Parts: sequence; C-alpha cells; structure tokens
Amino acid sequence: MEIWVTEEQTKDARLSLRIKETLYTGKSDFQDVAVVESEQYGRMLILDGVFQTSTSDEFIYHEMIAHVPLFIHPQPKNVLIIGGGDGGTAREVLRHEAVEKVEMVEIDGLVVELSKKYLPTISTVLNAGHPKFTLKIDDGIKHMKNAQNKYDVIIIDCSDPVGPGQGLFKPEFYQDVYAALKEDGLFVQQTESPFLHRELIKYLYKEISNLFPVAEIYTANIPLYPSGYHCFTVGSKKYHPLAVDTEKLPQIATRYYNREIQKSCFALPGVVAELKNS
Amino acid sequence: MEIWVTEEQTKDARLSLRIKETLYTGKSDFQDVAVVESEQYGRMLILDGVFQTSTSDEFIYHEMIAHVPLFIHPQPKNVLIIGGGDGGTAREVLRHEAVEKVEMVEIDGLVVELSKKYLPTISTVLNAGHPKFTLKIDDGIKHMKNAQNKYDVIIIDCSDPVGPGQGLFKPEFYQDVYAALKEDGLFVQQTESPFLHRELIKYLYKEISNLFPVAEIYTANIPLYPSGYHCFTVGSKKYHPLAVDTEKLPQIATRYYNREIQKSCFALPGVVAELKNS
Repeated sequence: MEIWVTEEQTKDARLSLRIKETLYTGKSDFQDVAVVESEQYGRMLILDGVFQTSTSDEFIYHEMIAHVPLFIHPQPKNVLIIGGGDGGTAREVLRHEAVEKVEMVEIDGLVVELSKKYLPTISTVLNAGHPKFTLKIDDGIKHMKNAQNKYDVIIIDCSDPVGPGQGLFKPEFYQDVYAALKEDGLFVQQTESPFLHRELIKYLYKEISNLFPVAEIYTANIPLYPSGYHCFTVGSKKYHPLAVDTEKLPQIATRYYNREIQKSCFALPGVVAELKNS
Repeated sequence: MEIWVTEEQTKDARLSLRIKETLYTGKSDFQDVAVVESEQYGRMLILDGVFQTSTSDEFIYHEMIAHVPLFIHPQPKNVLIIGGGDGGTAREVLRHEAVEKVEMVEIDGLVVELSKKYLPTISTVLNAGHPKFTLKIDDGIKHMKNAQNKYDVIIIDCSDPVGPGQGLFKPEFYQDVYAALKEDGLFVQQTESPFLHRELIKYLYKEISNLFPVAEIYTANIPLYPSGYHCFTVGSKKYHPLAVDTEKLPQIATRYYNREIQKSCFALPGVVAELKNS
C-alpha cells in the first residue's frame, strides 16, 4: 500500500510526498495539525494541509529568518519571535552571543507540544530551555499591541495568511510592530513565494515601505515550499541590509547561511525586484 | 472533468499540474514527447514524463544558461549549443553583439518541429532564422568528437541524464568538450537540482574540475524544476567567473538575469558549496 500526502500549492499545482508513517493527526483550537514521516524530506509538520517544515530542510528557513536580520542589527539584545512554534527560529537566534533575551509568542500550544515530542532536532530550545529564552502561548497580535519601544529585532515566523496567521499580514499589525521596536529596531517576516504569491508580496512590501525608512526583500531556496523559492521582507528604522561589514561578522555553525549569503540573498532577479516597484 | 499531468520528481515526490489542453502526445525516435497547456505555468514541453520548459518560466533557465557563461568570456565569437531543441537558449545567445556564429546541434528533430509549432515565444530563432545561426539535427556527442579548438563557449542544454541525454554526462564527453574549445574557451552544462541530485552533481563537478583549471557551480530558481532550485556547472580553461567586471557589461533586456546576478549566482549556500568539496 502506498500513502501520499498532497499539498495544494495553488488551485492548479500540487506537491505530493510519499509517507512512511503518520505520527499525529488532530485539531487544535486554531487549525488542523499533522505530523508525518515522509520518505523525501523526513519528518514534517503540516498545518491546515500546508507543509510547514521538515527535518531535512528546516535549517534553511530557520537560518535565513534568524541570521540575516540579526546580523543587520549591530547589537540585537532583545529579540521577539512571533509564531515559530516548532522552536527552530529560537534555536538559531540563541546562537548569537549579542542576544540577551528572546521572547517567543506562539498562539497554538499544540504545535509547541507536538514539536517537542516529534521534532526534537528542531525544538531543542523548547525541550531543554535556555536562560535567555521565554515562551508565552498567546496571540502575537495582542502581544504586539502592548509592547512599546522594547525590541531590537522582531521575527515574524508565521504560517500562511489564512487561518491564525491572517492578522499578521495587516497594516494595523505593522504599525504595532513599528511601535514595539526601539528607535533603531528592525523586523523580518516570511512573505511566501515570489513566483506564486506576487500580489501578496507587492501589497506587503508597499505597506512596510510606507512605514519603515528601509524596506528590502531577500530570498532563500526551500525545496518543501511552493515553487522552492521563498522570500522574506525586512522593515528597518535605521540599519540597511547592504551596509553590513560581512568580514567582521562572527562565525556561526550553519548549513545554508554564510557571510556571502548575508548580502547575496538581497541580489534579486528582475522578476522578483519588480515586486518592489509596483 | 479535471485533467492533471504529474512528474515523478523522485520516487517519493511528485508535482502535479492542472491541464487546460493536451496539444500533442507522441513518440520520436528518441523519447516520448508531449506538449500541454497548463493552468499554472502556461504551455509546457514534456519529454519522457519530465517537465522540460514552460512559457511562463522558460526565461529563467534560458537567460541563466546563456548570459552567465557568455559574459564570463570577453569575446564569445563562436558558440556551440548542444541540445536546446526549443530554441530558447539560441534566442538568448543571439542577444550578444560579440557573438558572430551560433551552431546548434539537437538530436531530436521532432522537438524542434513541435517547438516551432507550439512554443513560438521560445522558438523565435528556429522560426525566423538568423544570419548568425545554423541548426543541425544530429548527435551532439558525435559532433563534439569531430570539433577541435573551434569554440569560445559551449552550452550543453540537455535533458536529464536518462534517455538521449545520458552520454552528455560522461567523462569521455567532457574530454571532447575540452578539445573542441579554443585555448581560452569555457563551457556550461545544466546539472540538475542541488537538493535532489547531489551524487550526480558531486560526480560531474569532480570530472569537470579534473579537466578544467576553473570549475564552478552557479544556481537559479526555476519553479517548474524539481525542488525549484537548479544548478549549472562551468568548466573554463582561463577565465574565472568572479573576475568579470560587471560594471562594464553591456545591457541586455532580461527578466531574471541582471549584472548583480552575474556574480551573486555563484554565492553558494553551504549545502550546495559542499558538493564541490567531496
């Protein structure tokens, strides 16, 4: 017998993966949740039918959403992660010696519990804890409203703009992000595929560049995600991504990210760069 | 009724696309050939069940396989294309004013005929002809054996290393490529996905770096291809990809490639760079 799981990437494109074992399927207060063991990409977390992360390629997403923004900021002492329930982003953020405090606010406690149980290579910090790290199971939108002038870097490690992630892609939320950042703070958000979600990216980039003096897009290659090409949008009050002196960056053990990538990930092909000019 | 076409990317991963219309299915002397109209990626050429090109993303592959190597060479007068039956690579090569002569050797005449009929935006040169361009329907391996010290740049625009493309991934062939190049010549070959075809890439890189003093890998994001991430391997007798003075490159009208990409495409993530060191 063959078992396959299929993600509807768009209404006209589907990626199917052969499943070795289904470890969990259920419903949280917020979404459908599943954990499966796939032959191609290892163990995977699936939310509302969308492939979120896999043990074989998670390092790409987590390294790129954490190290790129943290190295744009010269002193990222206070970091906030919104979402990131599998723990991978927190794991990468805590590799930075400059970081003194990491708060993570995840809305779905079940995602955290399942990640601790089934994705131990990703959820290291959730399982072992860390003196610099605190986790709050709460609504990221509410948390952001109550924070003022507090964070150096905010990382929005959210799911797609459907279901519980929806409010994290709205103008009001970005105003709260702006207010929650210190006067030289910056934030990054995962912003989907530059091939398949072009209208969303154009809209978000416009919103973010209206608020922040510096707004840039960078990309990474993530085989599990639709089209294999993913983008991240940075809004910064002061520091520019290309002003980083990469020669002086401390070495961190990474498998995708490196000093060259710190800047080359902002070198956009025409078809992506044009999303900023529309 | 719904019609879908599925590519088996690996034995454990499949990409399925919704089909609007099936324009052609048949067999040439070399392979199964199909042309379909997909909802997501437009019109597509499929060989032996493998998605070859689509009218919506072909510009990425063709720009990247043509412009990157041609701009590494300061005077690419004589260019040879092996394969490239849809005509897209020839179209891009002919945008270079320095190019005086383009020979294309494609083994499968049916691919050329179908591209002329069904993929007119790709096959412009095949349909209209060009004073610098000649097409020969022949075996590229045989052609290469008979060429000595003749070409500035050779582009191997082949299908996967199964079926008729097989012989284009062998050490004997690379020796013939070396001999067919002038003393400062260089070649490029499409070399599959750095995520899904790692053993193949390691093997090819080793073969090519044994023969050529300069061997480098660059990448591009091609949504239609397995994992969305594709690599190209360059073997060069003299010129180094990173020695190009990109400020001085002539402008060409492109949609993916640009001067920044000329070098940033060689900035490899760790997981890809390690393919060169094994």
